[in-house]
Amino acid sequence: IQGNDELGLREFCTALYPGVVAEILEDMEPEEAWKVLKHAPASTQGEIFPFFDISFQVKLVELVGDKPLSRIIEEMSGDDRVDLLERMDPDHVETVLRLVAQAERSDIRKLLSYPEYSAGSIMTTEYASLPADISVKEALERLRVQAPSRETIYYIYITDEGRHLLGFLSLRKLILAKPTTRLEEIMQRDVICVRVDDDQEHVANEIARYDFIAIPVVDNQNRLVGIVTHDDAADVMQEEATEDAHLLGAVQPLEDGYVATPFFELAWKRGVWLVILLFAASMTAKVLQYFDPGDGGTWMVLFLPMVLASGGNAGSQSATLVIRALALHETDGRVSWIAWREIRIGALLGAILALISFIVAYLMIGIQASMVVTLTVFLVVTVGTLSGAMLPLGLKRLGMDPAFMSNPLIAALSDMLGVVIYYSTASATVQLFTTA
Amino acid sequence: IQGNDELGLREFCTALYPGVVAEILEDMEPEEAWKVLKHAPASTQGEIFPFFDISFQVKLVELVGDKPLSRIIEEMSGDDRVDLLERMDPDHVETVLRLVAQAERSDIRKLLSYPEYSAGSIMTTEYASLPADISVKEALERLRVQAPSRETIYYIYITDEGRHLLGFLSLRKLILAKPTTRLEEIMQRDVICVRVDDDQEHVANEIARYDFIAIPVVDNQNRLVGIVTHDDAADVMQEEATEDAHLLGAVQPLEDGYVATPFFELAWKRGVWLVILLFAASMTAKVLQYFDPGDGGTWMVLFLPMVLASGGNAGSQSATLVIRALALHETDGRVSWIAWREIRIGALLGAILALISFIVAYLMIGIQASMVVTLTVFLVVTVGTLSGAMLPLGLKRLGMDPAFMSNPLIAALSDMLGVVIYYSTASATVQLFTTA
Repeated sequence: IQGNDELGLREFCTALYPGVVAEILEDMEPEEAWKVLKHAPASTQGEIFPFFDISFQVKLVELVGDKPLSRIIEEMSGDDRVDLLERMDPDHVETVLRLVAQAERSDIRKLLSYPEYSAGSIMTTEYASLPADISVKEALERLRVQAPSRETIYYIYITDEGRHLLGFLSLRKLILAKPTTRLEEIMQRDVICVRVDDDQEHVANEIARYDFIAIPVVDNQNRLVGIVTHDDAADVMQEEATEDAHLLGAVQPLEDGYVATPFFELAWKRGVWLVILLFAASMTAKVLQYFDPGDGGTWMVLFLPMVLASGGNAGSQSATLVIRALALHETDGRVSWIAWREIRIGALLGAILALISFIVAYLMIGIQASMVVTLTVFLVVTVGTLSGAMLPLGLKRLGMDPAFMSNPLIAALSDMLGVVIYYSTASATVQLFTTA
Repeated sequence: IQGNDELGLREFCTALYPGVVAEILEDMEPEEAWKVLKHAPASTQGEIFPFFDISFQVKLVELVGDKPLSRIIEEMSGDDRVDLLERMDPDHVETVLRLVAQAERSDIRKLLSYPEYSAGSIMTTEYASLPADISVKEALERLRVQAPSRETIYYIYITDEGRHLLGFLSLRKLILAKPTTRLEEIMQRDVICVRVDDDQEHVANEIARYDFIAIPVVDNQNRLVGIVTHDDAADVMQEEATEDAHLLGAVQPLEDGYVATPFFELAWKRGVWLVILLFAASMTAKVLQYFDPGDGGTWMVLFLPMVLASGGNAGSQSATLVIRALALHETDGRVSWIAWREIRIGALLGAILALISFIVAYLMIGIQASMVVTLTVFLVVTVGTLSGAMLPLGLKRLGMDPAFMSNPLIAALSDMLGVVIYYSTASATVQLFTTA
């Protein structure tokens, strides 16, 4: 491939299924991928582009000149290009949009104006529609003209001159009907549709519930404004499942997935929750102090729940992220990469939590004791993070379900480890201070 | 509807979209639903049936006579009827199958023979296929004949006489092609397909990756044996996401969803994990004893992590179940039903865990102290279970994401509560024994 054989590269891009080409190119550096892709016609580029991960698309557009990029955007389907444009640098979007054909441009601007996570933001305007009073024969002829530019022609929507949605017809029914029949005789009149401002989760649920290939989207005057197709609905369902999994594991939901999210963003989205949970756990210390106002000897008990919770929470986070990434096939065969990343994140988060616990503990139990708590929190969080990430990977290698080692079990193991670290640190510190 | 107006009921079933009819009927008792449905023609019944929840289908077939049931099964599509038959009583299946037409019966037996969770178990044999050497015009004519009995005709597979998969053609491409073109000139030759023994999760991922409406399934001689359609792939993805969520929350995955699973099955699938986790936590008590061999005064510390973990784990379980059920719209508006169910399950699980902790604690710290641990575990598990279930419902009512109150935060709150219960129980017991 790297022989710069222009014709060969062009053929490589056009002969295979776009999703397969995208998969091969995504394993290369963006620069390399573009060197291959630039030889393909714009229409093929527009087909391949949406199959790239969104973060890979954003990297690629930086390399593509504005003129070829505007051509690619013209060729991409409505919902895919809006996904991309929403993630690009706004200045760059403006420059590129100026080069895009007028009709496409106003369509893009309209789709961009719908709120994120609404039906409008995931729909495409490239639906097939026909009037009600034509014959099946004429319908098939008109459909042939529309077909090349439509996302799907398998579902046909029947509208009046004002674009009001009157009925629905599947291509299957159209093909089975007599050529002279008029569409209004065979169309289904009660069309199940969604509103343009409906939540995307509702749209995905409706498509799943009725096993549709696509669902029509109407505005508040029942005018057809777009369709959402089954593949976009499936993406939404995956996104929502990932978001729920992340929230349950106490991670701010990641937009780009575990692998594509930059180090410090990942650390931030986990750290925020760990800090909140640390404060919640320090309240437990306060409650314990009320029941057991330690006089020198029992200060270790006060912080026992907090220390153990820190390790368990850190472990749950990394386990949740790795398990979800494995389910989405993001991380295939990158074990050492993950381990190294989690050690660094664990140490960073451990250091931050240790600092906060130092302050909390110092106010409650004085300097020497709080140093034990601080050191323990750092170690427990680092070890907890790493083992939470490694356990699912190990289970997968053993051929088991990575989710099997559930978060509570990770927390239980981390509890045991936490006790060992806590008491060992304490006795080491006591010895240190005694000898000093 | 209940006026027993036969014609009206028949029209109700046939005029609306099958998914909508199913939704309305599912809110009735199975007996009532069948009273309505029995007036519809078998073909409509076969269309409506798959939209019912599988557990509702199983209840319905008990009410339907064997003869009408065999007609419904003949009319259902291949994958849907296998789903149902797999869940029915085997004796009943045999009786009914004897009444099913010969051709359908052997198809059913073949599909039933594929292992669960394989591509074979979720595929349908009702695909559209054509030979390579016919013209587009002839292809469309043949497709009209095939159409009524095929799950989809939008994807057409090109096979030779030995059913070997040669190529693929979309109906869109067929409609756009010149009528005289031969199929082998326009078909795509590199067909992306899956093997009949591939895991269903792999199949779903392939369909999602390439945005297919269906994917062909071949045997090890590359012979086309079936297709898996996008809607079944979406179901698989939902199932897998639910299974992962349940495992992460330490619940044995439920096959029927939270609401449909019977009380004792649900208790068992949660109890098993809670007991394992209790033993894991009792190891922490052992470790603590090693570091801090309590002499009467410090026994409370030994069991502090175990007591707190029990409450947190029970809370995580119920929160995970309720959050997933909310995401799948299983539980709309059944708040008090859920609360009452979780109180009973919480009390049952609390009693079992309390009994085990009594034995564990008695061996380590003697009778009086272990009674405090036992009573606390019971209270903490019951309260933890109930609040874990109620928090997501409360968040939803406030318009927030139910998953937002993450499992670790529930555990943190339950920790605080656990400390209060533990020490209050202890001082109450001490007073009791002192006065006695």
